[in-house]
Amino acid sequence: MRVLGVDPGLTRCGVGVVEAQPGQRPSLVAVGVIRTSPNTDLSKRLLKINNDLQSWVKQTKPDQIAIERVFAQHNLHTVVPTAQAAGIAMLIAAQEGVPATYHTPSEVKAAVSGSGTANKAQVANMVTKILGLSAPPKPADAADAVALAICHIWRGETTNRLTRAMRS
Amino acid sequence: MRVLGVDPGLTRCGVGVVEAQPGQRPSLVAVGVIRTSPNTDLSKRLLKINNDLQSWVKQTKPDQIAIERVFAQHNLHTVVPTAQAAGIAMLIAAQEGVPATYHTPSEVKAAVSGSGTANKAQVANMVTKILGLSAPPKPADAADAVALAICHIWRGETTNRLTRAMRS
Repeated sequence: MRVLGVDPGLTRCGVGVVEAQPGQRPSLVAVGVIRTSPNTDLSKRLLKINNDLQSWVKQTKPDQIAIERVFAQHNLHTVVPTAQAAGIAMLIAAQEGVPATYHTPSEVKAAVSGSGTANKAQVANMVTKILGLSAPPKPADAADAVALAICHIWRGETTNRLTRAMRS
Repeated sequence: MRVLGVDPGLTRCGVGVVEAQPGQRPSLVAVGVIRTSPNTDLSKRLLKINNDLQSWVKQTKPDQIAIERVFAQHNLHTVVPTAQAAGIAMLIAAQEGVPATYHTPSEVKAAVSGSGTANKAQVANMVTKILGLSAPPKPADAADAVALAICHIWRGETTNRLTRAMRS
């Protein structure tokens, strides 16, 4: 299974693609950041995020998309643009026919580090170990996107195992 | 000048198109509401808003798009989906090459009723009088979208007059 993780943001939108084969360590397919300039018209910034994310989906062909859930309470100043970037990721998922799921930041932190309150450095270090990389993906938004993809894969596997266990 | 007003929302997204000719009363071209079901996947709801709004732009050919600005402080429960609907309207504006502008709710209320704190019924009544309609556009989201378009036309005219006055 191949998962595209999206850490939504208007100035920096992290993207990371992780491939998982049963019984094998997940591997990194691609990681990057979509950037837009605060000096550009909002409408054009959203168009760039849309076009770049669409290219990521078309080129990396994920089976599923995992997007960080945006909470209004966390930061009143950035919630509107961040929600808009997340919404565009959701829209592209529907346009490309790829199932998309939200994961909360604490779900992601708990999945990769064992603690829902891990800091960014701890998450980046665990992502590096899990994928067997020589250095953490940079910047932090890219590492967060990769962590989202890993979280989605592992949560999916847990759900599948539980479903099989309950059926047997 | 023809303006498409968008009152963003995930369950109900109001749309209204108003045409203005210099020295004439503005006239209503079309008004409606894009609805999506809370029982549908978020990704597919955003796709429906995207596709329907795109049809509105292609069919009514507005010169400009006016979108209600979303404030995080106003309603923590609806800010994320409302911001996502507004973001999709902004995205479509860029895709179709139509300039888009945000207006705050109080700007819209002040423009059509003279008071930034007018209620929904007062706004709907003023919209009805301004456009010479026999009844207010319904539901309220549709009337709000029409009010947005009128606000945009009038604010633009004021700005143009001031620019001309300052130049002369």
